[in-house]
Amino acid sequence: MTVDRVAVLGAGSWGTAFAKVLADSGTDVVLWARRAEVADAIRENRVNADYLPGVTLPANLDATSDADKALAGAQAVVLAVPSQTLRANLTGWRSSLPKGATLVSLAKGVELGTLKRMSEVIRDVAGVPEDQVAVVTGPNLAKEIAAEQPTATVIACTDHDRAVDLQHACSNSYFRPYTNVDVVGCELGGACKNVIALACGMAAGMGFGDNTMASIITRGLAETSRLGAALGADPLTFAGLAGLGDLVATCASPLSRNRSFGERLGRGDSLAQAQEAAHGQVAEGVKSCSSIRALAARVGVDMPITDGVHQVCHEGLDPRVLTAALLGRERKAERQ
Amino acid sequence: MTVDRVAVLGAGSWGTAFAKVLADSGTDVVLWARRAEVADAIRENRVNADYLPGVTLPANLDATSDADKALAGAQAVVLAVPSQTLRANLTGWRSSLPKGATLVSLAKGVELGTLKRMSEVIRDVAGVPEDQVAVVTGPNLAKEIAAEQPTATVIACTDHDRAVDLQHACSNSYFRPYTNVDVVGCELGGACKNVIALACGMAAGMGFGDNTMASIITRGLAETSRLGAALGADPLTFAGLAGLGDLVATCASPLSRNRSFGERLGRGDSLAQAQEAAHGQVAEGVKSCSSIRALAARVGVDMPITDGVHQVCHEGLDPRVLTAALLGRERKAERQ
Repeated sequence: MTVDRVAVLGAGSWGTAFAKVLADSGTDVVLWARRAEVADAIRENRVNADYLPGVTLPANLDATSDADKALAGAQAVVLAVPSQTLRANLTGWRSSLPKGATLVSLAKGVELGTLKRMSEVIRDVAGVPEDQVAVVTGPNLAKEIAAEQPTATVIACTDHDRAVDLQHACSNSYFRPYTNVDVVGCELGGACKNVIALACGMAAGMGFGDNTMASIITRGLAETSRLGAALGADPLTFAGLAGLGDLVATCASPLSRNRSFGERLGRGDSLAQAQEAAHGQVAEGVKSCSSIRALAARVGVDMPITDGVHQVCHEGLDPRVLTAALLGRERKAERQ
Repeated sequence: MTVDRVAVLGAGSWGTAFAKVLADSGTDVVLWARRAEVADAIRENRVNADYLPGVTLPANLDATSDADKALAGAQAVVLAVPSQTLRANLTGWRSSLPKGATLVSLAKGVELGTLKRMSEVIRDVAGVPEDQVAVVTGPNLAKEIAAEQPTATVIACTDHDRAVDLQHACSNSYFRPYTNVDVVGCELGGACKNVIALACGMAAGMGFGDNTMASIITRGLAETSRLGAALGADPLTFAGLAGLGDLVATCASPLSRNRSFGERLGRGDSLAQAQEAAHGQVAEGVKSCSSIRALAARVGVDMPITDGVHQVCHEGLDPRVLTAALLGRERKAERQ
């Protein structure tokens, strides 16, 4: 099915940037914003000042605060709300979802309590089969994409043809999507990287340099791959854009919320202080470290970095202890 | 065989930093410097002002400009000279190598002309069996290690016991070596990352951000892994410290010579201008892009990033063409 009309639900920085990508690819887009004044400003001034200041949005990007209006006639519905509120939001939209539309997740996380990936939450709430749900993930810092920097991304869907339709709807001169059928691996890569980015931020906040960061990224991707293997993901996914690519972009970039949040914790801020500095927002990884840790425990996988991040965020562990513990483990061969 | 006396041949930044690591691990070290004044300054003032300014070297690190003196009684000989001069240097030292000593390469490159890895050059020149040669590689920025920042590394040798002896000689509170028997993979990871770092530098020099860098790293590791597979390396090596770890540290760090060199090329400098800015030194990757490209051609492996870097460095290609070409390839599935 050709995708030429898309609803993007959620006007944060990534939702807005992805709506711009679609519009710049020649696709008609309606962006839903919770607040009417945000939708009005986008429609009237072509700008989302809170989340993408300085970026002019294209004319074929419409905006509304009426979700039914955004959803009407859409062949694809892009869900761009935080992972821990996706279930509640989608429940509200459920009755207006166009029949047969591809439901696309931009959220990266694992739901607390249920330990479900975002695509599983979507299937649960919308009552659609697995092959109707897609995931967009990869090295995608919203501000760089909004600035039209060349970027590769991954569209994952168990239905390859559906992924290709979506690929055509969002390909343009600066945005280059690859398809992948491994939804499990792509989602885990996206969720786990937020936690590893927190750990990298903590190390940076304590004054450690690029050797340490590279070691945390390497060991972090290894524990993500172990979790993926236990949950049926394709191990090769973690070597690609949705694994390594996303992880590197997030951990290396000062634009990353999770990395910046971790840096504050590494400098000695409390969770409350770091949250205050982040305009009241808690980084995704702060929540998902707990759900990913629980998921790993359920399948018997050892994730020492994720475990350490959870302990720093929620059990008062000093981040200095975390770094020392990661480097002080017994000497051994690399793959033991 | 216990390793308690080591010769380090080459007093550049990495040779000096690794000599310090050995000394800080309780191992007796003699560092050879080509210039007598460098050796004298290290012995008298405990400092190598040209390559590690501001770092106080430990008392059990001796220095000399007499290679025979450095080599006498060493159970391990660490070769810390540039990859393209290793053959000539080692030929000069050959008659003084202690019988049975482990010969350790710190150099990262593929020899022009012969297309041999450094461990192969060492075997050639020294006439020793494969299992007597080891390689140290990983996310190892010399200045950070000299500052005693926590760092993981890899000691690769086909003789696991020999790797473990070396591991014991260089383990301390800030330096954590892992062993690996995949010498081919570890060496290719180290050689190829210099070329990918040049490409990342070029992108940064042209003003591209972390999404682009992450994509180049991901695609760069993929082409490195393809070359490795064709040459008998273990694919898992590239997901570890000697592959991903080293690549990320080098590409992300402003301390990396290859990355900085690439940045100048990306900003429009000629090779000669970039070389002048680097105090007359050409980055390792400028030479090894050509030998790695030739090696890939010999085994029929496609390495578009390495090929592009070679063309920019040696055939006058505009780096803007390189980036556009990398992003403009036909839309497809990620693993095609």
